Amino acid sequence: MSLLDTIHSPADVKALPPGKLPLLAQEIRERIISVTSANGGHIGPNLGVVELTIALHRQFETPQDKIVFDVSHQGYVHKLLTGRNGPEFDKIRQTGGLCGFLCRSESAHDAYGAGHAGTALSAALGMAVARDMLGEKSHVVAVVGDAAFTCGITMEALNNAAEKTKRLIIVLNDNKWSIDRNVGAIAKYFNRLITTPFYNRAGQRMSRFLRRSRAGRGFLDFASRWRKGTKDFLVSSSLFETYGVRYLGPVDGHDMQALERYLAFAKTCEQPVLIHILTKKGRGYEPAVAAPEKFHGTPPFDIATGAREVKADQPPTYQDAFGQSLLRYARADGRIVGITAAMPPGTGLVYMRKNLPGQYFDVGIAEEHAVIFAAGMATRGLRPVVAIYSTFLQRAYDCVMHDVCLQNLPVVFCMDRAGLSPADGPTHHGLFDIAYLRTLPNVALMQPRDEDELADMLWTALEAKAPTFIRYPKGCGTGRAIKAAPEKLAIGRAEVLREGREVQIWALGPFLADALALAETLEKEKGLSVGVVNARFVKPLDTELLAAQAARARLIVTMEDHAEEGGFGSAVLEALAQRSLTVPVEVVGWPDRYVPHASDEKTLRKLCGIDFASIRARVLARLG
Amino acid sequence: MSLLDTIHSPADVKALPPGKLPLLAQEIRERIISVTSANGGHIGPNLGVVELTIALHRQFETPQDKIVFDVSHQGYVHKLLTGRNGPEFDKIRQTGGLCGFLCRSESAHDAYGAGHAGTALSAALGMAVARDMLGEKSHVVAVVGDAAFTCGITMEALNNAAEKTKRLIIVLNDNKWSIDRNVGAIAKYFNRLITTPFYNRAGQRMSRFLRRSRAGRGFLDFASRWRKGTKDFLVSSSLFETYGVRYLGPVDGHDMQALERYLAFAKTCEQPVLIHILTKKGRGYEPAVAAPEKFHGTPPFDIATGAREVKADQPPTYQDAFGQSLLRYARADGRIVGITAAMPPGTGLVYMRKNLPGQYFDVGIAEEHAVIFAAGMATRGLRPVVAIYSTFLQRAYDCVMHDVCLQNLPVVFCMDRAGLSPADGPTHHGLFDIAYLRTLPNVALMQPRDEDELADMLWTALEAKAPTFIRYPKGCGTGRAIKAAPEKLAIGRAEVLREGREVQIWALGPFLADALALAETLEKEKGLSVGVVNARFVKPLDTELLAAQAARARLIVTMEDHAEEGGFGSAVLEALAQRSLTVPVEVVGWPDRYVPHASDEKTLRKLCGIDFASIRARVLARLG
Repeated sequence: MSLLDTIHSPADVKALPPGKLPLLAQEIRERIISVTSANGGHIGPNLGVVELTIALHRQFETPQDKIVFDVSHQGYVHKLLTGRNGPEFDKIRQTGGLCGFLCRSESAHDAYGAGHAGTALSAALGMAVARDMLGEKSHVVAVVGDAAFTCGITMEALNNAAEKTKRLIIVLNDNKWSIDRNVGAIAKYFNRLITTPFYNRAGQRMSRFLRRSRAGRGFLDFASRWRKGTKDFLVSSSLFETYGVRYLGPVDGHDMQALERYLAFAKTCEQPVLIHILTKKGRGYEPAVAAPEKFHGTPPFDIATGAREVKADQPPTYQDAFGQSLLRYARADGRIVGITAAMPPGTGLVYMRKNLPGQYFDVGIAEEHAVIFAAGMATRGLRPVVAIYSTFLQRAYDCVMHDVCLQNLPVVFCMDRAGLSPADGPTHHGLFDIAYLRTLPNVALMQPRDEDELADMLWTALEAKAPTFIRYPKGCGTGRAIKAAPEKLAIGRAEVLREGREVQIWALGPFLADALALAETLEKEKGLSVGVVNARFVKPLDTELLAAQAARARLIVTMEDHAEEGGFGSAVLEALAQRSLTVPVEVVGWPDRYVPHASDEKTLRKLCGIDFASIRARVLARLG
Repeated sequence: MSLLDTIHSPADVKALPPGKLPLLAQEIRERIISVTSANGGHIGPNLGVVELTIALHRQFETPQDKIVFDVSHQGYVHKLLTGRNGPEFDKIRQTGGLCGFLCRSESAHDAYGAGHAGTALSAALGMAVARDMLGEKSHVVAVVGDAAFTCGITMEALNNAAEKTKRLIIVLNDNKWSIDRNVGAIAKYFNRLITTPFYNRAGQRMSRFLRRSRAGRGFLDFASRWRKGTKDFLVSSSLFETYGVRYLGPVDGHDMQALERYLAFAKTCEQPVLIHILTKKGRGYEPAVAAPEKFHGTPPFDIATGAREVKADQPPTYQDAFGQSLLRYARADGRIVGITAAMPPGTGLVYMRKNLPGQYFDVGIAEEHAVIFAAGMATRGLRPVVAIYSTFLQRAYDCVMHDVCLQNLPVVFCMDRAGLSPADGPTHHGLFDIAYLRTLPNVALMQPRDEDELADMLWTALEAKAPTFIRYPKGCGTGRAIKAAPEKLAIGRAEVLREGREVQIWALGPFLADALALAETLEKEKGLSVGVVNARFVKPLDTELLAAQAARARLIVTMEDHAEEGGFGSAVLEALAQRSLTVPVEVVGWPDRYVPHASDEKTLRKLCGIDFASIRARVLARLG
């Protein structure tokens, strides 16, 4: 039996003699490497926080104390230490297994759920203030990566921290990376904090004195008073002290004893305190240390070599098709620029970064800034393309409305992960963008049926003089080759893929395959004449074609990779109602609940009643 | 003819001898006081930037140079100096008059449109980078209030500034107020910047040397080198220098000569530079200086006394009804807390602030933080109520989804300004919230018919264990008295206000008055049996009642204070389609375009074809 197998709760972690902890850390690493090599997952961030998480669970008492992990993809170690080291961990991110993020419904030890970055400090501050109001004594710890400080929400929370509570512990987990290498002034500043002599000296003094527990505390209070009294400018010489938060560190984030001492001290502070710890992403697994961006989140890989599993004969992904098309267009037109919020590989902007760095901008985890920055560029004649996941664009919704659409600026949005991101789960499923976008005036919103149409749509969008949004799913396209020269599509025109009369199926993107199969089935089995339309545009909708078809059809079926509420089907219903057309409509989309994670999309479609068989049954029932 | 009347463009401002500028400033103040006393408007912020705006237009060449005003409610002076001092200014914020904010379509001198805070630095950075890429030489200036630094977007932009351009001028207009007094560490920090001896000395030295133009520049470069070389810690002793932005100031923001000198110097800097200027909100008008929060934005007032115009016999506003009801409930339950993002008077949270300060939180212009902070509180058993304008909640859309709804936390959102904010215009019209909220699972979304029902809904929401949203309009309610004890409403149940059979009108909030009047008309003129339903819940919709009515009705009419696309009517269409009910539906809502500003809602309803007469005509046409 391994040491890790004897750990059933944080109490077991606390009971271990310090000498055993390195072995525990090693076993945790082995377990995480083994499971992520099979399932894929966020290996790099987890290998970096093994010692930190052990130290946290030795110093704090969850679930009474609250540990809020930012993004929470680094929560695997926490899961292993809080009673989730069974078969459910073997299946993490897979059907029936643990969620890849923290989740309040999964464990009482998960104080807060997340999946998007930058929320931990705000949530922790809310918990701390609630604790103060309720007269409780527990601790609240926010574990926040350095990249989260490029995100405005973290700064909003930081501005409020010292004014709203006296007891809050922030662990700044500084590994120099978000998914990619960090950008902006804050990254340089953190580096300066580590390398300037003053801070190092302060850090050494602190840790030296901290070894003598109470004496250490006394010294720190003294030192702080001394600094305040005699060298006023030093008080604000740390960014955090500017915000009224006491700065401690930097600390070696892989030295468990040092971590425990700092955490123990932080528990005694009567002022919000930040402990700056330095960790190495991927620590303990050489391939991950060597290529942190590849091993942030990874598909299954070979442990010995680190090589990713390559499935033979797979068509290129939408991400690659987008990234390569954009590069092609941007090479020919220097006004075209690509903007990402810290997601160069995920979005496909890596091609721009590598080949046209002068037309490529990574702004950090700052979706709002990304969109307004693009709007500002567009006012000056550039043609900005914001490449962003569907759910991350939610962050910038006001900017989409207030800065782009209201001013009718020609910004192009390429929305990745529209539809499911199965292994990631509900924080990443892009199921709401049609609803939140199509309500806005001036929006043109499209979805391509394949990679080639994506290239056409991108071209069309770049030629348009208005806000344009293209949504497409994660992963492989259909394998259709991209034409040598893109075609400019007519705005608001759908494409008839199959002629028919009695039933008309209007579908978007990947659901077109289902639509065509369904048409075949209905024709064969029921002798019905069934048309299939590639809608292309959610807005403006091709109402002319729709109305012409609706006047003759017995049934219209809509299919989309989006929530039913407010989606494409709803737009079709509106258009028909406006024209007093009362043909029955069967709307197929994701039902009104949060879709969980699973190994694959098929499982989830079945679970939600929108697999092919269920759709077929629904349509047949509708036809009577 | 006044001096101001001779100013037709910025060139005329530049041509004035400096000795004439105080007179120009005075005339501008008189003009603004006069017009806002008649129309209402953002008097305080404008009186504070008279000298700054004159100095900007003397130092920069708009429209080639770009001046981006954050929020842009302080743009009146800019409008007066850029050819908009005619009758269109007399009617600012009124039908046919100038917009109360800057607007790209109004003037080439308006480099960027705004209405929400915190966007200027991002937009200006986008413009500066575009300029660099295009090889142009113009200047880009962002005029940003101190309060904008409580907003995360500004900090996201600041993190990117120094890395992305060498030439960007930021004017920090520090007046210590947003709409209300500023909160958080950043406000205290700005104060420290002004009062610490180091900065004052630096400022004095700078301005002394700057008087000698070139020599001044030389000194500053020298001083900067000296500081870098010998006292490294001082480099990061200003927050801005931490971010790689050169700090200059503080400067008296009412001293035009000093302002011009600093701006002239800033034009020569090859590093982003921030000029910290100190202004007085409301300067030159005593009542506004004495009560800055009252004279931030104001209704018409009496110039001599500053007294606001009071319309006799007006019913209380929804804001007061909300604020007083919340206070009543919060007094009885210490777990109830009210949260605002810098809007205590606008939202009605002033009652909490005054009477229960321990249960009241102003977090600054930080909507995202506000929502996650509330989510964190809710995890600990508090009952947070976020009071926020409908369009400002757009800022926190991802937090609504990711932090509140996905985790199914009992946070109550009281969404003010749902519907029009006529004089403010499209940045403030709350016409999209139904669409962006109802697509999210776990959402309960309501709209009351009057103040009493608002009190019931707030009570119902506080009793619910899930995310709940209440939307209601700006301004006066119906005058219905609030009951002594609130009633708990059945979730998802509508209220039949008028029995009928052939036509069923489902309406929300203020449109119920139209619905009842229309029912009368149709019954009288056409002999139709018309029912009226107070829908109460957009989600969950009362589909049972709807289906029962739809089975017998000839026509269903929906009416809402929201965009037609994706709104309440759309939810009704979906529910009917799901039940294979093909009754015709007439959806009445705001059409698919940005609704401009005007003196009143009536004008805009007529303009958009949803005044009573138009609705009546549409329904009659539909009935054939």
